[in-house]
Amino acid sequence: MSATWAKCRSVLITGSSRGIGLHAVKQLVKSSSRPATIIATARNPTASTVVDLPTAWVSNALDQHRYKHMQKKRSVGLRDLQELSKTFPGVHIVTLDVDSEQSVSSALQEVASIVGNEGLNCLINNAAIGNTTDLNTVTPEAMTYSFQVNTVAPLFVTKAFLPLLQTAAAHSSGMGIHRAAVINVSSILGSITHNWAEGANFKSYAYRTSKAALNMVTRCLAADLGSDGILCMSLHPGWVRTDMGGPLADLSVEESVSALLSVLSALSEKDHGGFKDFRGNVLPW
Amino acid sequence: MSATWAKCRSVLITGSSRGIGLHAVKQLVKSSSRPATIIATARNPTASTVVDLPTAWVSNALDQHRYKHMQKKRSVGLRDLQELSKTFPGVHIVTLDVDSEQSVSSALQEVASIVGNEGLNCLINNAAIGNTTDLNTVTPEAMTYSFQVNTVAPLFVTKAFLPLLQTAAAHSSGMGIHRAAVINVSSILGSITHNWAEGANFKSYAYRTSKAALNMVTRCLAADLGSDGILCMSLHPGWVRTDMGGPLADLSVEESVSALLSVLSALSEKDHGGFKDFRGNVLPW
Repeated sequence: MSATWAKCRSVLITGSSRGIGLHAVKQLVKSSSRPATIIATARNPTASTVVDLPTAWVSNALDQHRYKHMQKKRSVGLRDLQELSKTFPGVHIVTLDVDSEQSVSSALQEVASIVGNEGLNCLINNAAIGNTTDLNTVTPEAMTYSFQVNTVAPLFVTKAFLPLLQTAAAHSSGMGIHRAAVINVSSILGSITHNWAEGANFKSYAYRTSKAALNMVTRCLAADLGSDGILCMSLHPGWVRTDMGGPLADLSVEESVSALLSVLSALSEKDHGGFKDFRGNVLPW
Repeated sequence: MSATWAKCRSVLITGSSRGIGLHAVKQLVKSSSRPATIIATARNPTASTVVDLPTAWVSNALDQHRYKHMQKKRSVGLRDLQELSKTFPGVHIVTLDVDSEQSVSSALQEVASIVGNEGLNCLINNAAIGNTTDLNTVTPEAMTYSFQVNTVAPLFVTKAFLPLLQTAAAHSSGMGIHRAAVINVSSILGSITHNWAEGANFKSYAYRTSKAALNMVTRCLAADLGSDGILCMSLHPGWVRTDMGGPLADLSVEESVSALLSVLSALSEKDHGGFKDFRGNVLPW
């Protein structure tokens, strides 16, 4: 892994109980060039039982099946995460339900005491939900719930952690994960340009609108936070064999995460306000 | 006005109690080449008192002031609309609160009986709310409410009226307002590309995300409804001196509406799934 990661003193990754979040933590802790402080957040890290999702989300049989499977994966992931935090130094597990104002506020206090005067260098807004909603099955509730978790939550998590990012940015110059960065894990499914011809085969009104809106959040944040030296960008992790991506996806989660961490290590001023995939290719909005 | 409008037998415009919606009705009814049936919808067309907006929306002094002014304008607009429907033939005022499932369902029944076997040629999703929410003032409630009215509502209005659009599409060939079209009134503020440098001066996280998401809805609908012969596109009306645009805007509402109606009359297959401004220029997503 790139040596740049060692210059990023602290990273926080939301949604670390499984999938891309969990594997990013796994790869980072095992690297010789790693951030000293790695903060893995999850909705309910100590729970032996799982957290219920609103029924609005589980709108069809495929999603119901997928959600049951996810519940099992999450408990395994949480055990992995707890193991990592015991084995490796500087790994912190913090409770953060990104959709709860109170949880965000508690997490901020905890993270502030972990990072101290150095602030937070890199915030990765990874927590998200997926669903499959075509024109027949989409409901207003599925649209709104996806928007709240995938769009509104990353904005308000960023807003909450902004003082810590600004503190880190004040210690350094240039732009990149060595200074301060907000990485929104988006998707090519949120690219309006790409949603055409073959690119339009995957139907999900709720997921696609939430990720297009997240890309707008990225761009708004970039316009507002650039002068503070905080890099903001959207990242597409590829089609990954996670619970969200399903078993037919192109990439293993290890391949995707390894590529993503490499792209993040190379970020600089020219990436500010942009949208890249896991190979570092620029994507159209 | 272009003769093509006479080939569009029926048009429905949401949010017709003021601004662009009201003026579109005014210009259409007075033209010699006009749709035989013009359906103007408003949330509460017979109300002498105004409809309250959720307080979540009116989040700051500017919006509060603007909303009081809007309330006055709406009563004047409703009187104008009622006058037009008495003076000109084929003008129908239909109650439609785009944010209410029950209201959409009632409106559908009423419109179905108005257009009969010919179906509906052109649906203009114009009803929307604006607000000014920068990084300091934006709230989760403002984000969600803008998304519900500006993004979710146009999707479910279109879904409801789809059988009437499909009926109209079956009577004709080609693509355009002579056959069947869904026009989503979006905004250049919803262009993620444009939200940079000078283009990022106007701050509104809630409005911008809702319009970017609406553009994604347009594109999803275009991918799904193209095979039915239903043209779907997003349209930017320009910066207009309405209650939403404010007094400093570039264009009078008459200029904007005249240009928009001209762009709509010229739509063809090449515009399907696209984003244009009131001058007919293609905008980036």
